[in-house]
Amino acid sequence: MLCVGLDPDVARFPGSLAGRVDAIADFCIAIVDATAPHVCAFKPQIAYFAAVGAETQLERVCAHIRSAHPEIPLILDAKRGDIGDTAKLYAREAFERYGADAVTVNPYLGTDSLEPFLSAPGRGVIVLCRTSNAGSGTFQSRLVDGRPLYEHVAQRAADEWSQMGEVGLVVGATYPDELARVRAIVGDMPLLVPGVGAQGGDAATVLNVGRASNGFGLVINSSRAVLYASSGDDFAAAAAEAARTTLP
Amino acid sequence: MLCVGLDPDVARFPGSLAGRVDAIADFCIAIVDATAPHVCAFKPQIAYFAAVGAETQLERVCAHIRSAHPEIPLILDAKRGDIGDTAKLYAREAFERYGADAVTVNPYLGTDSLEPFLSAPGRGVIVLCRTSNAGSGTFQSRLVDGRPLYEHVAQRAADEWSQMGEVGLVVGATYPDELARVRAIVGDMPLLVPGVGAQGGDAATVLNVGRASNGFGLVINSSRAVLYASSGDDFAAAAAEAARTTLP
Repeated sequence: MLCVGLDPDVARFPGSLAGRVDAIADFCIAIVDATAPHVCAFKPQIAYFAAVGAETQLERVCAHIRSAHPEIPLILDAKRGDIGDTAKLYAREAFERYGADAVTVNPYLGTDSLEPFLSAPGRGVIVLCRTSNAGSGTFQSRLVDGRPLYEHVAQRAADEWSQMGEVGLVVGATYPDELARVRAIVGDMPLLVPGVGAQGGDAATVLNVGRASNGFGLVINSSRAVLYASSGDDFAAAAAEAARTTLP
Repeated sequence: MLCVGLDPDVARFPGSLAGRVDAIADFCIAIVDATAPHVCAFKPQIAYFAAVGAETQLERVCAHIRSAHPEIPLILDAKRGDIGDTAKLYAREAFERYGADAVTVNPYLGTDSLEPFLSAPGRGVIVLCRTSNAGSGTFQSRLVDGRPLYEHVAQRAADEWSQMGEVGLVVGATYPDELARVRAIVGDMPLLVPGVGAQGGDAATVLNVGRASNGFGLVINSSRAVLYASSGDDFAAAAAEAARTTLP
């Protein structure tokens, strides 16, 4: 149930790759190939590529995952949210340009803003519900009809969005009580859970409170702890070992 | 107070540019130069570039606006929203890579997700408040302590985010009553108002209810009605005339 997040930070690149923007794709592909036996998904974070103008390298990483590991789902972490024709273009970016199997999106703009993503045949839409950051309660915890806003997002996902397409939710490992409440609302829906490791979430707790009734239903993301398991040229082997041992 | 939105849709490109992905930058630059005398801002919508792999053309459009029209603010419409290091990377994408003066962002992830944008010196952060789409009420209208969620966003902007940096809000022209309520909450804060024209919002109404006390404070966006004012090779002149006459 481990997802390896591809957050390539050239300032942390190991060994002979250190500092090399041109090595982003090579770094990611080495991580992908080394960790593939231990993962249920890969999740490139597009901001790491966009900040340095490396979209072409992201295309190469995604193409490699699809061709070399076609059985492993590719989640584009983009947290897009826009309306009408613009939402359609973001769906095209994620599903056609990068060939992602699923994309993360933001629910603030409402159900019609999600429709262009949900209507894409065979693709998944993973909606932000309760995010892992310390300040996520600013709005997500505010009570609407006696329930926090994130529970309304979960309820919509269960009642409405699941009828429109393949939907999942993002719930941070840093909020295990909230994770348990979301699981109770959404049944066996897939939950993408970031925040294990560097952010302080505990994998054993996530597994205890977050599993679906079939024992699965969790996609637990780890990025930095896997990517930067070694600062030497043995980084890929170290990443594989980190991926193998991340979940209890 | 008119902002021209740069939403380059090659399927609607005029005359000899029709269908040409390689002409995106040329089209936008022709629109920019023709409409510059009539606008207070330009707003490229990044999804139109990202869907077709045209980030390099977006860089060229942004560089042109900054060099040829340095007095006109450049708003990158990206609606980004993420946490921690990732938010910093999106701020870098908007402010460094594209050199935007301001960027649109999504508030769902909370105040700490906005901080990396707000802390950028001399740059503006325009937060989604009440969006122009028909379904924006899914969450934005839900009552929290007796007030709709979007009013809480406006209150936070006025009370807290305005102390952290230069902040504005997005309020759709399609919701004039809500626009008036937001104006009452935020004083003279700049409001970016999409939804005039093709989406059905009325410019005169927006001006009536949305102005700040100094008579300004509105950035009223028009995209399609300006960009595609003519389907012939006179499109730039037609765009200039449309821009000149959009606001009463």
